[in-house]
Amino acid sequence: MSAFVSNLKVAILGFGTVGSSVARILCDLKPEGIELTHIYNRKIARKRTDWVPSTVQLTEDFETVLNSDANVLLELVGGLDPAGSWVRRALAAGKSVVTANKKLIAFHGIELEKLARSKNAHLRYGAAVAGGIPVIPGLQQGLAGDQVTRIEGILNGTCNFILSKMEEGAEFADVLKEAQANGYAEADPTEDVDGFDARAKLVILSRLALRADIDPNEIPCRSIREVSAVDFAYARELGCTIRQIARAELRPQSVNGSDVLASVGPMLVPKASPLAWSRGTENTVLVGGRYGGDVVFSGHGAGGHPTAVAVVSDVIGIAHGSRAVDLPSKKTAIGGEFLLRHSIRFIVCDQPGIIAGIALALAEQGINIHAIFQKPGYSQDRLPFVVTVEPCAASALHRALDRIGKMTCLLEKPFDLQMLEPEDKV
Amino acid sequence: MSAFVSNLKVAILGFGTVGSSVARILCDLKPEGIELTHIYNRKIARKRTDWVPSTVQLTEDFETVLNSDANVLLELVGGLDPAGSWVRRALAAGKSVVTANKKLIAFHGIELEKLARSKNAHLRYGAAVAGGIPVIPGLQQGLAGDQVTRIEGILNGTCNFILSKMEEGAEFADVLKEAQANGYAEADPTEDVDGFDARAKLVILSRLALRADIDPNEIPCRSIREVSAVDFAYARELGCTIRQIARAELRPQSVNGSDVLASVGPMLVPKASPLAWSRGTENTVLVGGRYGGDVVFSGHGAGGHPTAVAVVSDVIGIAHGSRAVDLPSKKTAIGGEFLLRHSIRFIVCDQPGIIAGIALALAEQGINIHAIFQKPGYSQDRLPFVVTVEPCAASALHRALDRIGKMTCLLEKPFDLQMLEPEDKV
Repeated sequence: MSAFVSNLKVAILGFGTVGSSVARILCDLKPEGIELTHIYNRKIARKRTDWVPSTVQLTEDFETVLNSDANVLLELVGGLDPAGSWVRRALAAGKSVVTANKKLIAFHGIELEKLARSKNAHLRYGAAVAGGIPVIPGLQQGLAGDQVTRIEGILNGTCNFILSKMEEGAEFADVLKEAQANGYAEADPTEDVDGFDARAKLVILSRLALRADIDPNEIPCRSIREVSAVDFAYARELGCTIRQIARAELRPQSVNGSDVLASVGPMLVPKASPLAWSRGTENTVLVGGRYGGDVVFSGHGAGGHPTAVAVVSDVIGIAHGSRAVDLPSKKTAIGGEFLLRHSIRFIVCDQPGIIAGIALALAEQGINIHAIFQKPGYSQDRLPFVVTVEPCAASALHRALDRIGKMTCLLEKPFDLQMLEPEDKV
Repeated sequence: MSAFVSNLKVAILGFGTVGSSVARILCDLKPEGIELTHIYNRKIARKRTDWVPSTVQLTEDFETVLNSDANVLLELVGGLDPAGSWVRRALAAGKSVVTANKKLIAFHGIELEKLARSKNAHLRYGAAVAGGIPVIPGLQQGLAGDQVTRIEGILNGTCNFILSKMEEGAEFADVLKEAQANGYAEADPTEDVDGFDARAKLVILSRLALRADIDPNEIPCRSIREVSAVDFAYARELGCTIRQIARAELRPQSVNGSDVLASVGPMLVPKASPLAWSRGTENTVLVGGRYGGDVVFSGHGAGGHPTAVAVVSDVIGIAHGSRAVDLPSKKTAIGGEFLLRHSIRFIVCDQPGIIAGIALALAEQGINIHAIFQKPGYSQDRLPFVVTVEPCAASALHRALDRIGKMTCLLEKPFDLQMLEPEDKV
């Protein structure tokens, strides 16, 4: 037995995809100092396997686990309730908790960390963001010495699967069905496609990297549902693809703490950006630091085994006495808007005066047109074209688009996308 | 003061590029619990600055530092001597050490870690591999729960600068001069271009990720000096670029410990591989795990500020009581060879029978030709062409090339490159 390794008795709460992967890895690798003692699940009888050792107690009663000698609980149930009250009760009883629950940590992480500290217990959640990619340990242990000013991430594998399939020419509705058939998307895909899953992860990363506690409800989320195949065709013209990007940035005047910009939604991503590289359900996170410049993490952000790697790594960390570096964060309001280039896709019944009307409405908001793109091969009766504009705030653009939307030639509501700009400063 | 933060008195040994960046970050960010007390350098008087606080003692005598109350020494001198004996003496005196010294850790890390443990002191070296990219914390904290079977890395910024410039058409000698002028390459570039720097880093990563202690001298290194512009032209035909790749892999039959394959040298890298993305002096590390699949880390692998971020992060980790997860490794011999596709570039005075001679020599070694490429625009008197072969061992190929090298039509020694194959298994 190594000098610094302590003995842990570990209970798994939730024996679904991640929980069973965790049990599998613990049984395969037998990490030093870690003994799996309990597995909790509703109707656990259905979940019996032939490979879990008979010494492990299977139960469908949380109280049994709470009152047992298990000293590390792995919360893999998800959701705010009952997971939240279980985590609270476990910490209050002095047990350590490892969780993959992004929602719980995004909404209640600060309170739970405080509770854990007061009990000298560990609360770890390396699996809550980007699954098997060690972004959280990388930030906590490896970038504590930098001043991170910017995070840009592909944090939702479902959206990345859908958008990378659409990049090949498919339409949203068809790919969503395929994703649902493959188990990459839920029957109700709202959390993923409308941005709430990525938002929770962004809140966690902002706390750890920017040291800014943001209220998740303050972060504007835009759905990827409105993206269509024609948008990818025009994105290619601009040297870009489209990805769901979760981003947060300290405003230059406020590096020491007041305001932060943040958003989640589809964006144009230049092909040269590392964020354009993710395929399928992969995740990518870019962290920009004042001293170290841009660091990119990429890999499998979801799935049983990759997520389980993060959970087991956290348990091993606790066994080895590795306390997470817990730098203070402070409550930070979302202030202001990103100033970015935008593209706007119009679908019109072609007639004279359209460009003039659009240009006028944009000019009234002080927005400069950069270029106009019209790909051949579409009917004049239903003509898509794209206008790109110089950096501006989305709110000003949307005022212009509200006015443009009243033009009778428009067959659909104009659809705008912000463009991610590379800005590595080292 | 946070409950878990202890007070550290920190001494910097070596006030060059990295040392002064470390001092700068400590003075700017003032991390909790960390007080800079000493700076050692030869002829320190030359190094005086106006921004180091007057409370910091400047000295050119190591003994002064060793006998002071500084309890964490940052060894930023580099090389095996005197850095090695200073680190040993500091640890023996119960002081913790943070170092960026890859050579010291590659050759003496195991002995030094043992010494540190026996004194309950910390030895940390997050800056020794890939500078500001948190690969080491990512591995130690974030991938401890996986079984890593494969590492592929661009670990030397100088080579990456040279090769990415050559990709644009320049020749080796010219780019090396440019790199030297920009401070990216030493006057004697041997350590970088011949692979010894990357080899030391690969040894460290193998220990942490594969848990295999490899003797650095056993790892075959091949120089990038032989790569020429025409090789990039042919690499493009194959959908590849050329990078210096450091790689190590557990042999499938020996995941639990005996043999490992490892090499450092120029390779063909498919454009779709994350290892083809690095530009300039950037580093990229790919870690392939049995459970979590491939994880990619990328960023600034060298330079004062990025390296200093890793050093300061290690110091903050010590202050916060974060003990590095130190999983046991074991002495492992390099066994066998990678079986890989190769390309071979010939430069010949064209005449009948060349292909027949080459094909015969390859066939004698059991090597199958995959394709033959000949780009137009070269003189028949000095004709480059490329033969690609199916996966084979380099030793067999080199036996064939020795024989082919005797053909009178050859104007230069044939130059072979192995091709990196993507193999993410999740």
